[in-house]
Amino acid sequence: MPPGDDCAVTAPSPHPLALTTDALVDDVHFRRDWLAWRELGRRVITVNLSDLAAMGAIPAWTLVAVAAPAELPAHALDEILDGCADATADAGAVVAGGNLTTAPVLSITVTAGGTLPGPCLTRGGARVGDHLLVTGTLGGSAAAVAAWLAGERPDASLAARFVAPVARIAAGRALAAAGAHAAIDLSDGLMADLGHLCAASGVGAVVERARLPRLPAVSRLDAAGHDFAATGGEDYELLVACPDEVLPRLDALARATDTPLAIVGRCVDAAHGVVLQDEGGRPHAVRTRGFDHFGRTT
Amino acid sequence: MPPGDDCAVTAPSPHPLALTTDALVDDVHFRRDWLAWRELGRRVITVNLSDLAAMGAIPAWTLVAVAAPAELPAHALDEILDGCADATADAGAVVAGGNLTTAPVLSITVTAGGTLPGPCLTRGGARVGDHLLVTGTLGGSAAAVAAWLAGERPDASLAARFVAPVARIAAGRALAAAGAHAAIDLSDGLMADLGHLCAASGVGAVVERARLPRLPAVSRLDAAGHDFAATGGEDYELLVACPDEVLPRLDALARATDTPLAIVGRCVDAAHGVVLQDEGGRPHAVRTRGFDHFGRTT
Repeated sequence: MPPGDDCAVTAPSPHPLALTTDALVDDVHFRRDWLAWRELGRRVITVNLSDLAAMGAIPAWTLVAVAAPAELPAHALDEILDGCADATADAGAVVAGGNLTTAPVLSITVTAGGTLPGPCLTRGGARVGDHLLVTGTLGGSAAAVAAWLAGERPDASLAARFVAPVARIAAGRALAAAGAHAAIDLSDGLMADLGHLCAASGVGAVVERARLPRLPAVSRLDAAGHDFAATGGEDYELLVACPDEVLPRLDALARATDTPLAIVGRCVDAAHGVVLQDEGGRPHAVRTRGFDHFGRTT
Repeated sequence: MPPGDDCAVTAPSPHPLALTTDALVDDVHFRRDWLAWRELGRRVITVNLSDLAAMGAIPAWTLVAVAAPAELPAHALDEILDGCADATADAGAVVAGGNLTTAPVLSITVTAGGTLPGPCLTRGGARVGDHLLVTGTLGGSAAAVAAWLAGERPDASLAARFVAPVARIAAGRALAAAGAHAAIDLSDGLMADLGHLCAASGVGAVVERARLPRLPAVSRLDAAGHDFAATGGEDYELLVACPDEVLPRLDALARATDTPLAIVGRCVDAAHGVVLQDEGGRPHAVRTRGFDHFGRTT
């Protein structure tokens, strides 16, 4: 862990520590012409902080391990690390250290740690009758990737969703403190991640397609037959299961955390499965095998 | 972080936490015919635990992020993860979680955390007059790599040094508790890492080439004109700077931790630089620019 000692040292905390690690690999998770180096650095931090947000944790530190081809320009590495540092600092955390190695393919693996001063949200706590809510808007990131892969220029509002996702740290903490039962971050796509949450909780779910929060550009695409909001991955919004008693507080929580919150469905008995309902109340079939990188599921 | 929640959660500790991350990349840090998959898993954990050892930390958890080509056989991935789990458990720690992604090139990035219940060793604490000691033997790993790259089969004692290095956790803790001033793990090679330690501490050093602990196979090579013990990287032994008062306890510390300890030199005024002395007391020139992977510096 250059340039300092063999390890970084962090101060003791009286709280449990939440830990996560996630990587972005060149030409697997991104293409170089989709975002700037600094944005790539910010993005890989955000992807990890989003996991902390889903647990209701407060980001404390990040570690940044870069594997880069020798021919990567020095300024590119500097800008990636600057982006990592900026996004970490924006979350009130510190880049505690990292590693740099040569590799044939550029990849950035981040580990993030966060403290859990209050209740910890998991995937397994949802109960029948819980309301399902999501932060922000869905499908924009996958819609942007689909456009890029088709050789088109995505609407700027969509590109921004891929390039600069937001980790919903304040919302995760506030919902955990307010009594939410379960949460997961939306990396694989709503229906896939809802499936993970339902499986872990032993419940089913019904989600109304019409209630999914969308950017206008996503609404147009979904109205034309796509399912970006229901299945598009890598939005890094949160899906949260809340009991009735949290509902009266949602508006206040949304304002306090500056985070749009939308109710999209409810948890039902596991026997009903995990269902997306169309505008007429009929099941709407989508593929939910998990996010296939580069948007091939959408 | 499949298959569980978005984060692993560890219990609070009253002690500071030491953190490190390090990666092994296919065809950069290893070649697949040099070691078995399980050994590769063990090795990447050990490389990280060695950094904890150099700080005097007690391993608590590891996170294992694997990036693997789709064509990697499933058993290979299983064996890598088994090796990671075994080496982590051997150190009394747990694999708290990880990540798996597709990538064109196999790489394994591990993050390790350890608690610091006592004094923390750094690179910057060495003082003029300190004795320099190393654990184990030096140069075996680089000698094995040099043989492989030359198309030869290394002596088994050398191959074992590359394939199955040992993190000197007990020795690091015991030396920290005994009053050692500074430490670094030997990943870049003795003279390179000694340079890092001296730079951080603001001291110089004189090391006697004849005192470097070597396997018999390394002794033969170094007698024939090589400098594997002085410059060979990736032994993952510790270099420790100790004041006079630790010396009478070295034999007992070596026995208590089952770790060979050898005094190889002393810290001197920074003006003298960092010098390797040959058997006649003359400076012995070596290249110490850091470990160039695949042994090209030796």
